Amino acid sequence: MSPGSVGTVETQYLDLPGSLSLDSGRRLEQVRVAYETYGTLSPARDNVILVCHALSGDAHAAGISRVTPAESTRDGFAAAAGPKGIGWWDGMIGPGKAFDTDRYFVVSTNLLGGCRGTTGPSSTDPGTGRPYGSTFPVITVGDMVACQRAFLDALGIERLAAVAGGSLGGMQALEWAVRYPDQVDDIVVIASTHALQPQGVAWNAIAREAIMRDPDWQGGDYYGTGRRPDAGMGVARMVGHVTYLSAPSLAGRFGRRLQSGGDLRYTLSEPEYQVESYLRHQASSFVKRFDANTYLHLSRALTYFELDLPAAAAAIRARTLLIAFSSDWLYPPAASEEIALAWKNHGKPVDLQVIDAPYGHDCFLLEEARQTPVVRQFLAEGRS
Amino acid sequence: MSPGSVGTVETQYLDLPGSLSLDSGRRLEQVRVAYETYGTLSPARDNVILVCHALSGDAHAAGISRVTPAESTRDGFAAAAGPKGIGWWDGMIGPGKAFDTDRYFVVSTNLLGGCRGTTGPSSTDPGTGRPYGSTFPVITVGDMVACQRAFLDALGIERLAAVAGGSLGGMQALEWAVRYPDQVDDIVVIASTHALQPQGVAWNAIAREAIMRDPDWQGGDYYGTGRRPDAGMGVARMVGHVTYLSAPSLAGRFGRRLQSGGDLRYTLSEPEYQVESYLRHQASSFVKRFDANTYLHLSRALTYFELDLPAAAAAIRARTLLIAFSSDWLYPPAASEEIALAWKNHGKPVDLQVIDAPYGHDCFLLEEARQTPVVRQFLAEGRS
Repeated sequence: MSPGSVGTVETQYLDLPGSLSLDSGRRLEQVRVAYETYGTLSPARDNVILVCHALSGDAHAAGISRVTPAESTRDGFAAAAGPKGIGWWDGMIGPGKAFDTDRYFVVSTNLLGGCRGTTGPSSTDPGTGRPYGSTFPVITVGDMVACQRAFLDALGIERLAAVAGGSLGGMQALEWAVRYPDQVDDIVVIASTHALQPQGVAWNAIAREAIMRDPDWQGGDYYGTGRRPDAGMGVARMVGHVTYLSAPSLAGRFGRRLQSGGDLRYTLSEPEYQVESYLRHQASSFVKRFDANTYLHLSRALTYFELDLPAAAAAIRARTLLIAFSSDWLYPPAASEEIALAWKNHGKPVDLQVIDAPYGHDCFLLEEARQTPVVRQFLAEGRS
Repeated sequence: MSPGSVGTVETQYLDLPGSLSLDSGRRLEQVRVAYETYGTLSPARDNVILVCHALSGDAHAAGISRVTPAESTRDGFAAAAGPKGIGWWDGMIGPGKAFDTDRYFVVSTNLLGGCRGTTGPSSTDPGTGRPYGSTFPVITVGDMVACQRAFLDALGIERLAAVAGGSLGGMQALEWAVRYPDQVDDIVVIASTHALQPQGVAWNAIAREAIMRDPDWQGGDYYGTGRRPDAGMGVARMVGHVTYLSAPSLAGRFGRRLQSGGDLRYTLSEPEYQVESYLRHQASSFVKRFDANTYLHLSRALTYFELDLPAAAAAIRARTLLIAFSSDWLYPPAASEEIALAWKNHGKPVDLQVIDAPYGHDCFLLEEARQTPVVRQFLAEGRS
């Protein structure tokens, strides 16, 4: 049987029964979580896989959304793959796929701080009746995971068979295994790191600067003003997008081909090269679907993330699969190698697979066919 | 005798006697060129080396400026090296240095389109009496070289013993050798390319977008309005700066060290990491000394630059020295290797030196000690 689709899905919403304490010392009194589930929860509730999205994702990880959003979260090189409304990791989640919904109950939530249904800076502050904006607390990956923990409690799910994610999603998987070592069997950490390298810190700072220097950001309180920092967030997205791709993949896709196909037009304001036009398109489609304050908060959180590797290795009990991609210069394979070495030094089970693939960091969304057998085998070994 | 300084210098100005025809088909009626010279012109006028600056440089290449500018052009990692007012390539130009002023008459001009004395978008349009702003013509590396040619004609200099430069400056050296093959003996092309790679096209496009999306840019006509696109140009500079450095050099210099030295402060708007603070500082010092429209025009010109290698190799008669740096991912050594191969295929003399150095593209400004013997030997061989 060939792998199939989970079919048509609809995002659901759950309000946490209690407040959420944050690493900063602040507290969110009311938290709503947007989520989707695929597959069937076993009677023993022991087949749950939590899938965690990256900076620009949402809860809609698989299948076709019943309410098709205007702008897909599958953009960049992945935009062409799949019909409108398809989930961002549809190639990995479904019957017979890497995260096999014939066996597992896969849960996907929009992150704390998000803008696609889970409480974030664009949500209404119950204390004021107005959007949080600049008053939304600065959050951490730990806070995201604590939110997921409270959400799963509300669903009556105690243990996770696995936590999986790429990039910021992989940080969440690592944090789960360190923060709740007795509640996670396996983690699948893809194109991720225990601590963003300084150049990555710099890129994220530049993206945030581009947003915050846009006068339409208004210190974060732009909701309801009729103005949004689309110009700055477009620049932030362009920066991010180029860091997600490798130089050879940009060369292969666009080369130095001119937009006109013919002569130079001698213009500053219009794109001359196809790659320039592509970046503008990426920026304009991203700002339609994403909130700038969410971008700031998630970017800050992933920059903050830093595991003390010896301490983490001592704490962790989950089996660990690390997948890295040879051309990923934003989250280079060296980081996964460091994690693997730390785990091994503490006798903790770890499998590192470096996949030779050309698309840079975006490989975790594009190289589904090559990740699938690695993930399937890793999960199967855990059951044996 | 140890290498010395050219001493105190002052930028001079020359108005070209005629108009300048541009590659776009447009024409500049009046062109002023800012320049400095170091050393003594030989009676035979056969010892002239033209030094060409990169995107953010100016005519002040060596010595100490008599009129100390508020902000040095030596910024980034090079800011700490040398006293206030020192030229951007002082380590390479002077008595006993790579470009030895005991032997050579070194000429350095501010580029056409510049903002440090040579005619550019901030200059007064003689046709209107107002700054060009949005009406300044889009220029090319060929136009910059044609301007230098007209300037040297006015100085009574026909032949060049060498043309030398790094990055955009190296493009000018290549263009000189192709456009005026009988007038150039040697070219020294450092950390440069015959055609910017697509990822570099993307970075430059993002930097320009950051400027043009700043509402204070005002379509390019911001002069005299009391508002300048400093916010956008700051972002442009940050993008550029990170592309000029290697990831390991950022890691070595800053690591993930916090600005506070202690705990996280949980802030979006303030720098948490030292590398974030460094980037802000780079941005704020750059906008004080540089004009945004000049940035746009020079960035566009270096993006346009593209030599047809077989045709260039057929045309060129100059001896060529190519220097590339192992860690330069913006202008990678592969480009210099392509040029060298094309020259060899046409039997043209070429020497390629790849220097193993950690600072990325900025090596051409930082690794002066290691470039010096290579350049000196190359120039000496040409005289023998």
